[in-house]
Amino acid sequence: MTTVAPRHPLATDAAIQQSRGELLHLVEERMLGFLANEQARWQDVNARAAQPVAALTTFLANGGKRLRPTFCLSGYLAAGGHPANSVAVDAAAALELLQTFILIHDDIADNSSLRRGAPTVHEVFVSEHREQGWQGESRRFGEGVAVLAGDLAFVYADQLAERLPAPARTVWNEMRAELVIGQHLDMAIAAEGVVDPGLSRWVAVQKSGRYTIHRPLVLGATLAGRPDMAAAFEGYGLALGEAFQLRDDLIDAFGSTEDAGKPTGLDFAEHKMTLLLALAAERDPRVAALLDNEEGEPWDAELLRTALEESGVRAAVERTIANLVDKACASLTGSGLDKAWRHEFARLATQVAYRSH
Amino acid sequence: MTTVAPRHPLATDAAIQQSRGELLHLVEERMLGFLANEQARWQDVNARAAQPVAALTTFLANGGKRLRPTFCLSGYLAAGGHPANSVAVDAAAALELLQTFILIHDDIADNSSLRRGAPTVHEVFVSEHREQGWQGESRRFGEGVAVLAGDLAFVYADQLAERLPAPARTVWNEMRAELVIGQHLDMAIAAEGVVDPGLSRWVAVQKSGRYTIHRPLVLGATLAGRPDMAAAFEGYGLALGEAFQLRDDLIDAFGSTEDAGKPTGLDFAEHKMTLLLALAAERDPRVAALLDNEEGEPWDAELLRTALEESGVRAAVERTIANLVDKACASLTGSGLDKAWRHEFARLATQVAYRSH
Repeated sequence: MTTVAPRHPLATDAAIQQSRGELLHLVEERMLGFLANEQARWQDVNARAAQPVAALTTFLANGGKRLRPTFCLSGYLAAGGHPANSVAVDAAAALELLQTFILIHDDIADNSSLRRGAPTVHEVFVSEHREQGWQGESRRFGEGVAVLAGDLAFVYADQLAERLPAPARTVWNEMRAELVIGQHLDMAIAAEGVVDPGLSRWVAVQKSGRYTIHRPLVLGATLAGRPDMAAAFEGYGLALGEAFQLRDDLIDAFGSTEDAGKPTGLDFAEHKMTLLLALAAERDPRVAALLDNEEGEPWDAELLRTALEESGVRAAVERTIANLVDKACASLTGSGLDKAWRHEFARLATQVAYRSH
Repeated sequence: MTTVAPRHPLATDAAIQQSRGELLHLVEERMLGFLANEQARWQDVNARAAQPVAALTTFLANGGKRLRPTFCLSGYLAAGGHPANSVAVDAAAALELLQTFILIHDDIADNSSLRRGAPTVHEVFVSEHREQGWQGESRRFGEGVAVLAGDLAFVYADQLAERLPAPARTVWNEMRAELVIGQHLDMAIAAEGVVDPGLSRWVAVQKSGRYTIHRPLVLGATLAGRPDMAAAFEGYGLALGEAFQLRDDLIDAFGSTEDAGKPTGLDFAEHKMTLLLALAAERDPRVAALLDNEEGEPWDAELLRTALEESGVRAAVERTIANLVDKACASLTGSGLDKAWRHEFARLATQVAYRSH
């Protein structure tokens, strides 16, 4: 494999942090500046017309890990991309608005009331409708407005991705279809209560592996003119994505709402056949029995948590996560990345796999 | 204003019908072929992954007037665009998938159970969930799946619009933001019961004028290299769009579900402050009184219909529609369009303004 010829000194951890930090700062400015323009434009028409834009601004201001922009810009810089490139900033901003779109729609589907420590978008509008005593059903109004706010984020994401060169646009388009299909499959498996670790793993690979890590990295590398790095980043992304999803499942099963900034225990409440549960059911008949209720009665979260711990599934999953992190890092050896970047990707992998929210 | 130099004989009504008919046929092939590829691709992963694609195929197969493709291709051919151009076909197909996206989301927001004489997408999945006795709430599942199916139509629309040259992409992007904001404003006005003819007219102009007629025409003319025709098409589109919306309101207020292929009386049931009602309330205090109930009690549809007829509002609106059709046609004189095309646009205007569904 060819080696990266850095077009500029990026040899030290400090330099990496600085270049990427500056770009991530520009990403925030780009997103908020874009939304501020739209806000002003629609405000001129009517205050109500600007409501969905304001909802997106608040959603972004409430936080978020900016994982996809971070991976996109890391892939870009690691591949030797020039630190001053507004198209790379736009690409990273587009990824975060795409994530905004899917989170807003996902929170409706999951009936989730809290996100980033604040009420979800639909929750805000359901409450306002109720408090104002407006016409019609509060739930239908609030969820309808949130669907449109998500749609708007989707439009804006694409407008930010408009300047991407053709090879990067191809990655962008592929990502979007994968994302929506993955969400649907996730929902269908949960509703049908399908216990199929293979299928659950496929969903995890799509949602967390490809969408969160692999595609953003490849998007960045492609913008830097290094599509040849796709294979290495795919290995890294798919392994780390599975670890990411398992951690997500563990946080939901055992984490606290305070730490997560969103309600935990949702997967159990919504009968979501997560990768964690699929593996557990495979390994422990007691878990399988708890999950298997034809009548669609609610699962007993306490019994499930206990079973997951006593059967050693929780510990086994932690071992799996550790192995996946090693596998992710190993897939970058021979990729031509310099030492500092291999360190950085190892650091990112640990951060993602051992996060508390 | 410059006159259109037709690059090929399109002088007769018959020739116009034939060229556009052939292109519209290609649009159907393009949409169904695109969806068939996606269907096969996701079917290979898992039957469930292909469900949203199948839902879109069924939705398109159930009919629809293909108004936006028709206006796009009319604008394209009238501006002298060459009849054999796959990008024009893609643009028209993209417009129909964008419409598919918004109708699926709109049917959820309107709690509508019927569309094109068939159950709406969310209705199909709500029923399946209920019949199969799957886990969780049937409404949340069915509406959640439909939101994702709409999202997927949005992604596919954009993939079909991928090859548009930059000036056409600008029209495309502008359209999408306008569309979503217009939908939101429509919903907000309905919920708050705002009686503001100016605002209701603005929404009608956005949704029906710009989105349905003006932008598709300009998109076509731009693809034909005639962006200079935008002004004439704007005049035509905005006037006809208002007529389109008023007809829509009349169909919902007075039409039968059989003719409409969708439930009528929805605007009343959902307290939608339509342009029709806004004008009526302005003209007749009795109507205003019927609409004005602080408690958000359901409106009495029968009393409203009677008031609309006795107060002469219905007749007045029919006069307004006729004037708007004239205005639309008049805006094309001096546009450099040849006689056959001016006839055709007059025919389209009448078709749109006096349709029964």
